[in-house]
Amino acid sequence: MQKLAADLIALLGDKVVSTTAEDVAAHSGDKWFASSPPDVVVLPETTEQVSKLLRYANENKIPITPRGAGVGYVGGCVPLKGGIALSLMRMNRIKEINTQDGVAVVEPGVITGDLQRAARELGWFYPPDPASLNECSLGGNIATNAGGPRCLKYGVTKQYVLGLEVVMADGSIVRAGSRCHKNKTGFDLVALMVGSEGMLGVVTEATLRIIPHPPVRAMISAGFSSFAAAANAVQQILGNGFLPSALEIADKFTLRAAREYLGESVTPDGDAHLLVEIDGQPDSVDGEIAQISDLVDKLGCVCLERAIGDEACDRFWKLRREFSYSLRNTGLIKLNEDIVVPRSRLVDLVDFAEGLQAEFGFPVACFGHAGDGNIHVNIMVPNMDEPEIRERAEAALDRLFHQVLDWNGVVTGEHGIGIAKQRWWSDAVSETARSAHLAIKRALDPNGILNPGKFLA
Amino acid sequence: MQKLAADLIALLGDKVVSTTAEDVAAHSGDKWFASSPPDVVVLPETTEQVSKLLRYANENKIPITPRGAGVGYVGGCVPLKGGIALSLMRMNRIKEINTQDGVAVVEPGVITGDLQRAARELGWFYPPDPASLNECSLGGNIATNAGGPRCLKYGVTKQYVLGLEVVMADGSIVRAGSRCHKNKTGFDLVALMVGSEGMLGVVTEATLRIIPHPPVRAMISAGFSSFAAAANAVQQILGNGFLPSALEIADKFTLRAAREYLGESVTPDGDAHLLVEIDGQPDSVDGEIAQISDLVDKLGCVCLERAIGDEACDRFWKLRREFSYSLRNTGLIKLNEDIVVPRSRLVDLVDFAEGLQAEFGFPVACFGHAGDGNIHVNIMVPNMDEPEIRERAEAALDRLFHQVLDWNGVVTGEHGIGIAKQRWWSDAVSETARSAHLAIKRALDPNGILNPGKFLA
Repeated sequence: MQKLAADLIALLGDKVVSTTAEDVAAHSGDKWFASSPPDVVVLPETTEQVSKLLRYANENKIPITPRGAGVGYVGGCVPLKGGIALSLMRMNRIKEINTQDGVAVVEPGVITGDLQRAARELGWFYPPDPASLNECSLGGNIATNAGGPRCLKYGVTKQYVLGLEVVMADGSIVRAGSRCHKNKTGFDLVALMVGSEGMLGVVTEATLRIIPHPPVRAMISAGFSSFAAAANAVQQILGNGFLPSALEIADKFTLRAAREYLGESVTPDGDAHLLVEIDGQPDSVDGEIAQISDLVDKLGCVCLERAIGDEACDRFWKLRREFSYSLRNTGLIKLNEDIVVPRSRLVDLVDFAEGLQAEFGFPVACFGHAGDGNIHVNIMVPNMDEPEIRERAEAALDRLFHQVLDWNGVVTGEHGIGIAKQRWWSDAVSETARSAHLAIKRALDPNGILNPGKFLA
Repeated sequence: MQKLAADLIALLGDKVVSTTAEDVAAHSGDKWFASSPPDVVVLPETTEQVSKLLRYANENKIPITPRGAGVGYVGGCVPLKGGIALSLMRMNRIKEINTQDGVAVVEPGVITGDLQRAARELGWFYPPDPASLNECSLGGNIATNAGGPRCLKYGVTKQYVLGLEVVMADGSIVRAGSRCHKNKTGFDLVALMVGSEGMLGVVTEATLRIIPHPPVRAMISAGFSSFAAAANAVQQILGNGFLPSALEIADKFTLRAAREYLGESVTPDGDAHLLVEIDGQPDSVDGEIAQISDLVDKLGCVCLERAIGDEACDRFWKLRREFSYSLRNTGLIKLNEDIVVPRSRLVDLVDFAEGLQAEFGFPVACFGHAGDGNIHVNIMVPNMDEPEIRERAEAALDRLFHQVLDWNGVVTGEHGIGIAKQRWWSDAVSETARSAHLAIKRALDPNGILNPGKFLA
């Protein structure tokens, strides 16, 4: 390993290569519990350095695990086979924000929230908003095709990536896509790279679509006596031709934890909670939020509050985030599974989660993006070290994922497969589709150096 | 060739195999001028037949050119190497429209407009709207990632394809994606297939996202004294946080042809024309169309009309389509190039087109989707048979495409490369990106049977 570090220093200079215990530890995993140390950490500052590094790794068949900010939930950037951890976090410049063209050109290490704020200052908007937006990087968002609440109206990360500079496994530099908002030149290499979890190439620059910022937003927060009633409200709002920027639902277990953590007075009444956000021109937003309030009221909510404008809305979002902290506050580990079901299955899913809780003895809390059926099912376990508990947790996950797949749902909506969902990869994807994955992987990374040991291992 | 037909009849039955002169002629090309006859036409009715056919063709290395309705503009479905023309037009069932899940499941031969109408009857909306929507098929839309005016707000075809059943070159059947609105399971094979122009697989079923139909729409039609003034209005409308469902621009050459064809009284005044459409809730649309009218008025338009509701809007759209017929009415052949420029280059593009007209002596008319920079540049030529004219036309196209690429534009926004743009493929895409295309093509179609002779030839 000393040879590897020495080779890399000779190749790239000592400023971007590290083998300190601290750096190695900091690049061994993400927010999931798995961890595996790399032999060397490389923190390049230029595309050329990434290119040289990959050419070297490819020639010498050295595993290389690219990573962004390391805040993923599935162990996607754990260097399972050692070798090189490649952090893109020093490549963190916003190179350009051009409102006339409606594009931002960024390096992969830019923090998502920083781009949002920079665009906002010009009156423009980069919509994808994962919960971790103040910590996560745009490169990581691209690798996982990150989503978030506003993706109901605005779409996920892939809908904003117009162009990419990608270093391929052999070190060659590919520019795919463009700075245009439409492009039918050849295959959609950009779309193939987005969500490929660092297994097909390393993104070194992205040209992102930005849109005019909607001038105003407004929200309602509503409690319902049952999850079924809240889920019905979701269908009715959409069925009446409204396209909210967010439609977030939470179940009674989540609310119960919130009551314990935050107190009764702050937490909305009822056994289910719905947040609706709309945005647009001031008069339109005023009118539509009133109409949606009326609709929700008629559907029999047990409490209803309205917020108009950024400040009031941010208070609602803060409460929504507190739900997540409330679950953490239980002292349990949250196995946060970002499954997706066809929207008609929302009620079935929550009923099923209740059964899961009864059968396996773990609290199960469901909340998330109701509009697109992407519900975070949180199985709350005391720990994952004790074999009995871990086995029981795995059995509960098995039941959950198989049920979701039986409903034509999917096991991950926005986090990716990584290591966490590797076990269900072959249940989730047919043999012919796995063959197509392998054929593409071998075509673009014949030596298998990019993020090895993950779902195609 | 008799052997091929006999083999295919033995394999698939005589009802789906044809070698009649009529069928061969009808499957030799599209709306572009190139044509090449297949040896046999196959019109399967089931996925299993497609699978058997591809397995046979792959084993025997027989070229196979898949096609939809054959209304493309780039010769994408011309069977350049003979062999089998594979029409998907008999697989034309809408299998399901499920508003609770927000999906439609269709076979590839369904006409786009038919799906739109079927969804509309339920109050739902399939937004992609290529000009040919009453003739083109969803399979063809998927193969070319078709766009249209409403893609400014709603996105192109790829943003609506959630899942695909694809028969691969070897006959294996891959189901990629799902019926969920979010999915991060593995690589995005769906996105790789969308826009791949029949070169990577044959789509036999698609699960499409549908959204609630906006209850009301409204439009303005405005004339400006110059293209620069109309382009400025485009930027101002977007810059004020409006997201129109369409923003269509036309230049003075288009208007001049319209005046000759339709008469002065019908054609809007001015040397440039802008159509703006917005949609949503009734009160919001009323308010916003008034605001946009005021804005456009202040920007110095020379005429302004407003339409509220479907019927009035359809009259504006009819006029817009007449622009296209007006150009045809000149008796010239319209080389319709769907180039895209960064939005800030709209004025430069039209100035350049004027220069092109002066230099090469062909009328050049520009109109199209101003919101996303996707302007159809129509070079009007007397014919393409006379060598001198053809050479001059090709030279004009050369100049156009090279200028567009110099501006970081792209040579095709929604039609594809096909044969028509093959000559500029290597100018438009770097060598490393072409290598990545070839690697993927070889991985998924090692015998090169799928739509051979096109841009990867």
